[in-house]
Amino acid sequence: MKLIGLDPGLRLTGWGVIDVEGNRLRHVAHGVIKVAGERSLAERLSELFEGVAAIVAGHQPVEAAVEETFVNVNPGSTLKLGQARGVVMLAPAQAGLPVFEYAANLVKKSVTGAGHADKRQIAMMVGRLLPGVEATADAADALAVAICHAHHRATAKRVEAAL
Amino acid sequence: MKLIGLDPGLRLTGWGVIDVEGNRLRHVAHGVIKVAGERSLAERLSELFEGVAAIVAGHQPVEAAVEETFVNVNPGSTLKLGQARGVVMLAPAQAGLPVFEYAANLVKKSVTGAGHADKRQIAMMVGRLLPGVEATADAADALAVAICHAHHRATAKRVEAAL
Repeated sequence: MKLIGLDPGLRLTGWGVIDVEGNRLRHVAHGVIKVAGERSLAERLSELFEGVAAIVAGHQPVEAAVEETFVNVNPGSTLKLGQARGVVMLAPAQAGLPVFEYAANLVKKSVTGAGHADKRQIAMMVGRLLPGVEATADAADALAVAICHAHHRATAKRVEAAL
Repeated sequence: MKLIGLDPGLRLTGWGVIDVEGNRLRHVAHGVIKVAGERSLAERLSELFEGVAAIVAGHQPVEAAVEETFVNVNPGSTLKLGQARGVVMLAPAQAGLPVFEYAANLVKKSVTGAGHADKRQIAMMVGRLLPGVEATADAADALAVAICHAHHRATAKRVEAAL
């Protein structure tokens, strides 16, 4: 069963697809969707949406996962991230996939065992859990979310069903 | 030429369609898209996207306008608004419409003559500019954005072309 993890951003969105069979995880593919900053916001959101939709259509994952984000830098960047995040979550939802959200420290804990790992540690542990994978930070974060979902999906689905 | 104005929100999104011929504005339709809060964020975003897409498909406006939003309440609500806003802007963009953004005080100034009008004043002036229209606050704000775009679209398009 294939799962996709997504790490949304208006300029860079990381994605990672893994295959799960029981406790066994296998790396399928990962990458980064880059959206150039010149055009209007709506055009950039459109390109981002189409980029994610193409990955979902190409790899046919059955579930998607994103990190719950809290940014405190400034309201402007939080709004920008929100816009990207809305569109990134919409793409799998429009393809009929359930989309799960995970707190950032749960994602970190799932791959490193600790809730406060930095990006370098996450990338290193993703490489251990999915042997041979060398992903850049954005794609490693996306793979980490997919791994976190693989570990927690049974629980997440029970919670979903109970709502 | 039909224009759509949009006032995004995760629970309530106002929309208003007007027809512009030279300096003459005519009200076409307005309403509010309500999304119930029970389901997952991705499902709600999906419903919102489909709601806006249906309005765009039904009324066939040629351009869309949204207000530039700055919220300082808390990062959580700013992120939520951003997610809704991204999806609301995406719907007309995916239908091939250019989507323009206007600062809140320019929208207010366009309908009331002042940059700091409250929602009640905006609704009242929208009713004067589009005689006979009685819109709720959310839809009145959306109509106000459409009116603002009608006033500024020549300039906005020149700026767009120069980028």
